[in-house]
Amino acid sequence: MITSPHNEKLKLIRKLHQRKHRERARLLVAEGEDLVDAAAAAGADTEFVLVAGQDVEPGLLDDVSELGSGTRVIGVYRQRWSELGGDVSVYLHGVRDPGNVGAIVRTVHALADGCVVLGPGCADPYSPKAVRASMGSVFARPPAAAALSELDGFKLALDGGAPTALGEVELAVPLVLCLGAEREGLPAEVSSGADAIARIPMRPDGPNSLSVGTAAGVALYEVANRMADLA
Amino acid sequence: MITSPHNEKLKLIRKLHQRKHRERARLLVAEGEDLVDAAAAAGADTEFVLVAGQDVEPGLLDDVSELGSGTRVIGVYRQRWSELGGDVSVYLHGVRDPGNVGAIVRTVHALADGCVVLGPGCADPYSPKAVRASMGSVFARPPAAAALSELDGFKLALDGGAPTALGEVELAVPLVLCLGAEREGLPAEVSSGADAIARIPMRPDGPNSLSVGTAAGVALYEVANRMADLA
Repeated sequence: MITSPHNEKLKLIRKLHQRKHRERARLLVAEGEDLVDAAAAAGADTEFVLVAGQDVEPGLLDDVSELGSGTRVIGVYRQRWSELGGDVSVYLHGVRDPGNVGAIVRTVHALADGCVVLGPGCADPYSPKAVRASMGSVFARPPAAAALSELDGFKLALDGGAPTALGEVELAVPLVLCLGAEREGLPAEVSSGADAIARIPMRPDGPNSLSVGTAAGVALYEVANRMADLA
Repeated sequence: MITSPHNEKLKLIRKLHQRKHRERARLLVAEGEDLVDAAAAAGADTEFVLVAGQDVEPGLLDDVSELGSGTRVIGVYRQRWSELGGDVSVYLHGVRDPGNVGAIVRTVHALADGCVVLGPGCADPYSPKAVRASMGSVFARPPAAAALSELDGFKLALDGGAPTALGEVELAVPLVLCLGAEREGLPAEVSSGADAIARIPMRPDGPNSLSVGTAAGVALYEVANRMADLA
């Protein structure tokens, strides 16, 4: 039973709150039973799991928690990174919000067979907020990191200003759906590297964009439907 | 220029951090230029707007801000609530996360002509987090509050366990898309009040649900496409 805040495991968890330490150690922290269960179900590489009242004094675990309300269990795991591949994957450029990155990891896990590929300027998919937003899908379908030019396949970029509607754009397999940050949209380097650009049709009196997470869901749904029709 | 933290406007803003005060006063707070601009563009009923360095000492405005990093402008507005209506609206039951409620307000504004209808157990759409997640769409397309039984039209509920896929379910106008909280899904009172229940098809090896915000986006996209085909 850990009774000192100077315990090495607790110190490691605290350090892993910072991206640079996560990247250096290639580790991540998962808090709460749901995520720890998801890690176990996915056969994650576990460094250690600390259960409050069993392995560690509850107050000490709360002190290293990133959740506001404290936690009953924290696990530390080795980061995994996917190889590129699959019929459908999603490339993100400049998606800085970890909640968005995590949510898209979950959506891709639900609707596609490939993974999320992180381009420049994206949030760390192994930050606590991203891991939580993924609902554990980071364990089952780890992300990849690559530049757009390294990706094979038909690159379909989403852009609100594109003349072609998503439902009318031609598709090919393998397909890489390319999404940019909300505010800036797709930078020229991404749209110029794309094989097709399409917009999700929206009402003229509405906002000029969907959230990047919603856009990813809509586009993956459309792509999955169209591919099922082709198959 | 306001120079005292005891100023009545600053005291009001602080009070409005709490849901009960917002509901009693029927007011909301919007922080930051984007939201204040969105309020102006939508012709919101403005109580007052405070600009740092012009109407109030910057430090005092930061002190009443709900954003971590402080803010340069805060507006206080009268809440608006929509009447029920439109060809497509979205009924939410037990969606407790204000970020999800706000994000769905934005998605509905982009993809439908009706509004978000808040049933029991939903987050306050006028909480700071919801207003921010809506990106200002709460001003342009205010929510409504009602019980499912008060809604006219064809009620289509989403449920991951439904045998019928979303693309195969029959639709009718006006349509009310019914969504429940993520974890609990749709309670029996909602599914028993629905005219049809459908699932968004997902991969068998994936998570057992999409986030409620993503599910709303996918379903509204499908509905909008199908209705355009019908028209």
